[in-house]
Amino acid sequence: MVRVVLCNCPPEDANRLARQLVEERLAACVNVIPGVTSFYMWDDELCEDQEHTLLIKTTEERYPELSRRLAELHPYSVPEDIALDSARVAAAYHSWVHETLSDT
Amino acid sequence: MVRVVLCNCPPEDANRLARQLVEERLAACVNVIPGVTSFYMWDDELCEDQEHTLLIKTTEERYPELSRRLAELHPYSVPEDIALDSARVAAAYHSWVHETLSDT
Amino acid sequence: MVRVVLCNCPPEDANRLARQLVEERLAACVNVIPGVTSFYMWDDELCEDQEHTLLIKTTEERYPELSRRLAELHPYSVPEDIALDSARVAAAYHSWVHETLSDT
Repeated sequence: MVRVVLCNCPPEDANRLARQLVEERLAACVNVIPGVTSFYMWDDELCEDQEHTLLIKTTEERYPELSRRLAELHPYSVPEDIALDSARVAAAYHSWVHETLSDT
Repeated sequence: MVRVVLCNCPPEDANRLARQLVEERLAACVNVIPGVTSFYMWDDELCEDQEHTLLIKTTEERYPELSRRLAELHPYSVPEDIALDSARVAAAYHSWVHETLSDT
Repeated sequence: MVRVVLCNCPPEDANRLARQLVEERLAACVNVIPGVTSFYMWDDELCEDQEHTLLIKTTEERYPELSRRLAELHPYSVPEDIALDSARVAAAYHSWVHETLSDT
């Protein structure tokens, strides 16, 4: 199984977060999607911010540490951290993710 | 659990849809991803359209109403509305989503 | 149920892959998200590449053939191919996906 974690962050933090999660072998791969506009309520006010969306690919075993580290590295007090589990994964890609994250 | 709903729409409708779903407390947050090219078949013809992708974060309880409202607000006769359920969510973020959508 | 398949590829291959999967009725719709920066480790080196992210909408029945074909068409030796299954889908959209992929 591969776990896909969704997170959003300010544009200026995206590459740093992605790089660090991969270098620390908490994620096999992180895709940074730019130019995202986010709408949400905060203190009863509608907010509209520019963000980047991170698609973080990890494993069930690595996720607790990744989630802890994401909260530490992220500038928000309550960062988005939603984990979606794969139903299927191509065998070669599955092996690559698990080998990448298991040789620490 | 947090439900992530995927939807695509014409660029000119994206921010309006996102804003309205959040203001009506049907979604805690909506990310609008711009510049998307969509390929699909319609009446046996290959179509290629410019769209924006919406990543809508809601709850299982709010989803039926969100889905109904999305169909009402969306310009297409058959809008995409695919709900993916989280396997894990960071505790603080989970609380924020549920508090944001439960105080109506 | 609708299966959402995540795949990343070089920018110059994205539209070709999307078009071919749809024309061969392996996917009902493919969204191409541009301008993505991907971070990953390869041979113990941190890599940073420009890619496009594909959101491929298919069915459980079509997925094995789509996955096989994606591996054939994709320029990488180990392409990303992660399938996420919907928890809910709007009825009209569900019918459209299944009708689009079942009349071959």
